[in-house]
Amino acid sequence: MMRKPKHKKRKKKVTHLNQIPGALVYTGEKESQDVVVEVINYNTDFYGRKDSRTVEDAFDFKGTEHITWINVNGLSAINEIEKLGQHYDLHPLILEDIVSTQQRPKIDEYSNYLFIVFKMLYFNEDNEFVAEHMSLVLGEDFVLTFQEADGDVFNSLRDRIANAKGRIRSAGADYLMFAILDAVVDNYFVIIDTMGDKIEVLEDTLFSQRTDDGLTQEIQDLKKEILKIRRSVFPLREVIHRIESLDTPLIEDKTQNYLRDLYDHIIQVSENIDIYREMIWGLMDMYMTTISNRMNEVMKVLTIMASIFIPLTFMAGIYGMNFDYIPELKLKYGYFYLWGAMILVFVGLLYYFKRKKWL
Amino acid sequence: MMRKPKHKKRKKKVTHLNQIPGALVYTGEKESQDVVVEVINYNTDFYGRKDSRTVEDAFDFKGTEHITWINVNGLSAINEIEKLGQHYDLHPLILEDIVSTQQRPKIDEYSNYLFIVFKMLYFNEDNEFVAEHMSLVLGEDFVLTFQEADGDVFNSLRDRIANAKGRIRSAGADYLMFAILDAVVDNYFVIIDTMGDKIEVLEDTLFSQRTDDGLTQEIQDLKKEILKIRRSVFPLREVIHRIESLDTPLIEDKTQNYLRDLYDHIIQVSENIDIYREMIWGLMDMYMTTISNRMNEVMKVLTIMASIFIPLTFMAGIYGMNFDYIPELKLKYGYFYLWGAMILVFVGLLYYFKRKKWL
Amino acid sequence: MMRKPKHKKRKKKVTHLNQIPGALVYTGEKESQDVVVEVINYNTDFYGRKDSRTVEDAFDFKGTEHITWINVNGLSAINEIEKLGQHYDLHPLILEDIVSTQQRPKIDEYSNYLFIVFKMLYFNEDNEFVAEHMSLVLGEDFVLTFQEADGDVFNSLRDRIANAKGRIRSAGADYLMFAILDAVVDNYFVIIDTMGDKIEVLEDTLFSQRTDDGLTQEIQDLKKEILKIRRSVFPLREVIHRIESLDTPLIEDKTQNYLRDLYDHIIQVSENIDIYREMIWGLMDMYMTTISNRMNEVMKVLTIMASIFIPLTFMAGIYGMNFDYIPELKLKYGYFYLWGAMILVFVGLLYYFKRKKWL
Amino acid sequence: MMRKPKHKKRKKKVTHLNQIPGALVYTGEKESQDVVVEVINYNTDFYGRKDSRTVEDAFDFKGTEHITWINVNGLSAINEIEKLGQHYDLHPLILEDIVSTQQRPKIDEYSNYLFIVFKMLYFNEDNEFVAEHMSLVLGEDFVLTFQEADGDVFNSLRDRIANAKGRIRSAGADYLMFAILDAVVDNYFVIIDTMGDKIEVLEDTLFSQRTDDGLTQEIQDLKKEILKIRRSVFPLREVIHRIESLDTPLIEDKTQNYLRDLYDHIIQVSENIDIYREMIWGLMDMYMTTISNRMNEVMKVLTIMASIFIPLTFMAGIYGMNFDYIPELKLKYGYFYLWGAMILVFVGLLYYFKRKKWL
Amino acid sequence: MMRKPKHKKRKKKVTHLNQIPGALVYTGEKESQDVVVEVINYNTDFYGRKDSRTVEDAFDFKGTEHITWINVNGLSAINEIEKLGQHYDLHPLILEDIVSTQQRPKIDEYSNYLFIVFKMLYFNEDNEFVAEHMSLVLGEDFVLTFQEADGDVFNSLRDRIANAKGRIRSAGADYLMFAILDAVVDNYFVIIDTMGDKIEVLEDTLFSQRTDDGLTQEIQDLKKEILKIRRSVFPLREVIHRIESLDTPLIEDKTQNYLRDLYDHIIQVSENIDIYREMIWGLMDMYMTTISNRMNEVMKVLTIMASIFIPLTFMAGIYGMNFDYIPELKLKYGYFYLWGAMILVFVGLLYYFKRKKWL
Repeated sequence: MMRKPKHKKRKKKVTHLNQIPGALVYTGEKESQDVVVEVINYNTDFYGRKDSRTVEDAFDFKGTEHITWINVNGLSAINEIEKLGQHYDLHPLILEDIVSTQQRPKIDEYSNYLFIVFKMLYFNEDNEFVAEHMSLVLGEDFVLTFQEADGDVFNSLRDRIANAKGRIRSAGADYLMFAILDAVVDNYFVIIDTMGDKIEVLEDTLFSQRTDDGLTQEIQDLKKEILKIRRSVFPLREVIHRIESLDTPLIEDKTQNYLRDLYDHIIQVSENIDIYREMIWGLMDMYMTTISNRMNEVMKVLTIMASIFIPLTFMAGIYGMNFDYIPELKLKYGYFYLWGAMILVFVGLLYYFKRKKWL
Repeated sequence: MMRKPKHKKRKKKVTHLNQIPGALVYTGEKESQDVVVEVINYNTDFYGRKDSRTVEDAFDFKGTEHITWINVNGLSAINEIEKLGQHYDLHPLILEDIVSTQQRPKIDEYSNYLFIVFKMLYFNEDNEFVAEHMSLVLGEDFVLTFQEADGDVFNSLRDRIANAKGRIRSAGADYLMFAILDAVVDNYFVIIDTMGDKIEVLEDTLFSQRTDDGLTQEIQDLKKEILKIRRSVFPLREVIHRIESLDTPLIEDKTQNYLRDLYDHIIQVSENIDIYREMIWGLMDMYMTTISNRMNEVMKVLTIMASIFIPLTFMAGIYGMNFDYIPELKLKYGYFYLWGAMILVFVGLLYYFKRKKWL
Repeated sequence: MMRKPKHKKRKKKVTHLNQIPGALVYTGEKESQDVVVEVINYNTDFYGRKDSRTVEDAFDFKGTEHITWINVNGLSAINEIEKLGQHYDLHPLILEDIVSTQQRPKIDEYSNYLFIVFKMLYFNEDNEFVAEHMSLVLGEDFVLTFQEADGDVFNSLRDRIANAKGRIRSAGADYLMFAILDAVVDNYFVIIDTMGDKIEVLEDTLFSQRTDDGLTQEIQDLKKEILKIRRSVFPLREVIHRIESLDTPLIEDKTQNYLRDLYDHIIQVSENIDIYREMIWGLMDMYMTTISNRMNEVMKVLTIMASIFIPLTFMAGIYGMNFDYIPELKLKYGYFYLWGAMILVFVGLLYYFKRKKWL
Repeated sequence: MMRKPKHKKRKKKVTHLNQIPGALVYTGEKESQDVVVEVINYNTDFYGRKDSRTVEDAFDFKGTEHITWINVNGLSAINEIEKLGQHYDLHPLILEDIVSTQQRPKIDEYSNYLFIVFKMLYFNEDNEFVAEHMSLVLGEDFVLTFQEADGDVFNSLRDRIANAKGRIRSAGADYLMFAILDAVVDNYFVIIDTMGDKIEVLEDTLFSQRTDDGLTQEIQDLKKEILKIRRSVFPLREVIHRIESLDTPLIEDKTQNYLRDLYDHIIQVSENIDIYREMIWGLMDMYMTTISNRMNEVMKVLTIMASIFIPLTFMAGIYGMNFDYIPELKLKYGYFYLWGAMILVFVGLLYYFKRKKWL
Repeated sequence: MMRKPKHKKRKKKVTHLNQIPGALVYTGEKESQDVVVEVINYNTDFYGRKDSRTVEDAFDFKGTEHITWINVNGLSAINEIEKLGQHYDLHPLILEDIVSTQQRPKIDEYSNYLFIVFKMLYFNEDNEFVAEHMSLVLGEDFVLTFQEADGDVFNSLRDRIANAKGRIRSAGADYLMFAILDAVVDNYFVIIDTMGDKIEVLEDTLFSQRTDDGLTQEIQDLKKEILKIRRSVFPLREVIHRIESLDTPLIEDKTQNYLRDLYDHIIQVSENIDIYREMIWGLMDMYMTTISNRMNEVMKVLTIMASIFIPLTFMAGIYGMNFDYIPELKLKYGYFYLWGAMILVFVGLLYYFKRKKWL
């Protein structure tokens, strides 16, 4: 059941307040986790993989004619990331952005590498929606990726590298960057399809449910969720558009077609987001008409009951009076005449409401 | 009757997830269907047509001085499409887009052909609205089209080619491309006119119907439908605008006027879509006022009945009391005096409601 | 009275469906009408006018040093229009647009003439709002105009030409084109002023009227009307802007100031349209609050009547009971004491409602 | 009191309909007024001022090395304005725009002067909001201004010229133009501050007032007013932006800083207008919730009164029946037992409503 | 408690009305305060700080090879600011903008310095939201800042300069400017996080609270607050974007990366503002559905009570009549039979409401 979303923590601390620009402070919430460095090294003929806790192990492959993918899992070990930064000669502001989880998607172009920040959206094991901060550095023959936590959307990609499926093993580091972004964007489709399902479930609930058991809150939560997704996706669209139009030796011409395709996909995601957004905003209106319709129904029952029985009670009240002289009371069949009159009134009112289509 | 739209399936599977970029996977729902390849071959003096199940039959005409239109009906037979792709030397990403039914309208320019994706909108035999994924490849002397299913909007075009009506037989492959897109866009007018009719029917229903027998749901469904149409039409507008301004030898100067005309038409469709969209959004507001007006009416009936008979019942209640000494009860005509007073109250209240214009 | 707008026909046939591009099919509704060709010929010293049923009569003036204005009234006589087209060497697509009444305002630039499509808005004799399809061809020394029906907004212009008022007789064909567009745009002001009046009448009705006698429908109709006007005016604004910035020998420098002025006017019309549009959308909200206010009033009357008389009836009910021993009934002035209590309750409740400001 | 805005005239005549372009027709409503021509002539060392009824008196200063400011008060004396136009060689369309009060703010650049149209907003002596049509011609050593009526916002500027305050006396005609526009824009701040006050007053009224004594109408009027102000201010913003970026010898470099400052100010006005606009649109929603809250309150009173007393009346009704055998009636303390039961019901219902927080 | 926001003063005087352009008039509200001039002087090896009441003390450092930061606290002492202006040769319009607290954020580029206006947002000691007018002048080796009041967000920056943390001591005046703006923008995050908290608190209140104890007013106040923040932040975004793209010797290349980072941050703030804005606008809708739901609840209670007890009272009324001949009254167990019937009606109605899910 999706009825009672658990209460989110209220304070997202703004941890980079009063901090020296360029200083490394991890702003996420997963401090205790161990950093795992995963190194994949390959070319057309070679494939090697090494998992380690320290970044130094990753440097063995440097200088060989391989493509190296170093994936850092966990951002709390500032030291390891700094070592990596020194090794690959990354600008201090880049290191700051890698660990600053509030950073929005962007691309920075440096003389010998590209730096890309984006959000990886997925549902974790507890089926909770997660927007994980991720960053990527593309160099001539290496790609560095930094993830906030375990769990990602790259298993199929790892498999393709390991088993030489598709053109990945024969292509350069730029194609690897494309493949990583492609996996991330493909997963956006899963996320927005789930949004679509949630909207349809809510719509059904709107009509079937009789009380506001958290419905308004749920619609509001959905609004927030779609706004959060939007904030992750839309800047990445700009980023991909800029990658496509970059004039850099880091990206080969033949990768351009793939990037263009990727751009098509993320535009499609964006369009769906905006459509779902409109649908969600429309839900509130739908809900409002549903409530009003129900109130109408309630009012009709009240009006019919009251309009029929109040006059009848009045008629009975008349002959409950104790005046000395009420001629009707003396009639032999007075009581039955009255019943007749009451039935007439009753039927007349029923007919009136029937004609008004309230019955 | 349009009251109960049958329940749509909830899960549109995102089948290209975890898939290798450039791999062919048909993402539509019509897998079992046979592929039919239709080849039309013509020039000013010649006309030939051949229907087949295999793509090889289509290659006979190649190299002759004819315009060739190869229309593939059904996207599930990946093999046939791949053969066609090899024959005409199409990029793998193009083949992927041909079978990927989620792909939004776009144009890709390659060195010796144009690739266009768009949606064919029509009502099928069951009068259901269908947005069929279609793609088109324009070469020097050929046009390839790929449709998801049987049934299209090109019968009039086929007839014009067969019977040499208009300038089609004397014009090049670019004019054929124009004619195909023109037929598709012309059919958009039918679709949006139907939307207009639906809106007017809903408006009428809003005023005549007394209960919410699925009305809110229907308005919401109409919203979704118009958003879906919009998503098909608007990107095609951009596509046509880009075709118009392309600097390519594939399109002759004299076809430009026709493309400009086509662009005019699709802009017209877009404008109508946005107008209908506003109308549909307005329907919810109209419905809300209608509901409120009805509630007002219900409340008035209740208020009038209650306000008249509750005081009268009170008056009757007074003289139903059993006090030892109630002087009025002893009056000879007390009962009739009371009736007089009651009628006065009744008429007074009627007059009050009349003046308030509630009656 | 504007209360019951007569029912519009539901089906606007999309007659150019399945039609050969460039073919002439009149898509309007005034088929039976006779075509009237009106030819006005003038220069500084000369003025001549000829009305005819055939287009050939119009060609007499060609080649002379006069400005010729040929105004075709009625679009159903395809033949006559084709003859005119051949005579002035117009492109087939132009002829198609001349008779296609659905065509939106646009400008097409050809090598030796300009082609402009626009809508003439006016109220006809029955005071119905009409958006008439009109097109104009500007050549070196001629202007052709094509109207759907009799009746236009050019009488003052005709008078100025006939009586040599202003600079029209001494200016070229480009000034005539300006003068025609100026007359059309000036009439837009009349149309939108009428919209403004309608809005004010509706506002007043909203407050004075007690029932929804078609009000919601009327607001919706007004919405549609303003959207229709908007669709006619906004594209023409773009057209005029483009004429202004055209680099063509057909338009003299000294006419530019007049075109700039015309552009100012149509921007003013557009702004007013958007303001009225916002006002109309606001009407629905106003109406909603008005309805709710009235319901509040109804509920107050009910609440006051019921809250006062139900407790009193209860008090009377108490002493209508038949218990053997009810001490109050034996009191000599019990009945009057009760009346006292009842009056106290009555006054207390009145005071309560007074303090709540419900009375 | 602002409750009952007096009824505006409904017909603003569109007087320039059917009028020859370039003809002078004053379209305002202040026909009878005398034209006053005010001439101020100055340089660093000299100051002269002359008020007159005829424009000829203004020409005395021409040719001297002074800056001349000719301010025409009242637009009905077409003749005087035409004389001025001939004297300074103004284009006929400029003269038309000077007297055409419907003209929106704009700038026209001519070879040896600039022509600017704008609206002067102020509250007149009767505290009514007035949008006065004004135009300004900037020449090499003169500024002409044309106002619709007496009363303007330039007294402080006149004083600065007369008493040589600030840099005005030592600067050129372009600075005078700046100073005039600056005075106009400064007064916009007064206008929008008044709007802000009106909004706050309406907000307070919304909460304190119990009936809709014209409130909906007032909100609607405020909407119209802000739209009217917007229509005056926003085009002037564009005008000032264009003046700033003009490449003309008429404006000295050192005046640029002042124009930039002026542009800042009008942007600030525009932003405030849009904020107030949003606030006003929000008022309708606020009002709606206020009405609904009040209805809720009314319904609660009704529900509590009816729910308590209807069951009690029923209980009393039971023992008012005349069955031969009703055992309770014979009990000695039956009447008091019943009272006990009634009090129990009463307290129970009170507790129920208390727990529901309706009391 | 946040329920009753204290009443804001209504009249913000427009003090720069009728004022000479370039004249210094302080438009804020903190006139009485003493001006404090704080001078910080540093280079890699040197650090000095001096607080003073007069500006002359600040000039001692001039000409040395230090970076000088002069921070003026309080804008009422026009004289001191004018002295500073003369010393650093600032344009009169700059001095005017420094003391004009209504000025919106902007950047002006002069030949040898940059002038930036922005708003410092913070919560003061009384936890009130303050938007303080601030301006900054960047010269070759100095930065001047002007604040309206005591209290700012620069303590961490002062500490970094004093203790040579980070790169500030080794960088130029441009980096100091960046550091100041960075501190200001970082504090924007605190402000908008507080907005987010307020929204969540309001949402909770919406559902838990039963009466409109100022809720509507609070939502409206929140709207105003977010609009005010928006007005401060959005123009600064443009300013920073312009600084980034300035071609000036005042800003070194290596500072560009930091400015780009700053621009990222302020875009992030802007996006959050727009999201919160949408959330606040949605609150009104949520509130409306909540009210309607509650009314529904109230109406159900009324309808159930009335619908059950009114018919029962009618039945009792029947047998309270005094007809001579009512056969049921004579039945021995008539009274009990009636009770039976009543209980049947009662149960039947309960079941009816149960099935309607109103219970």
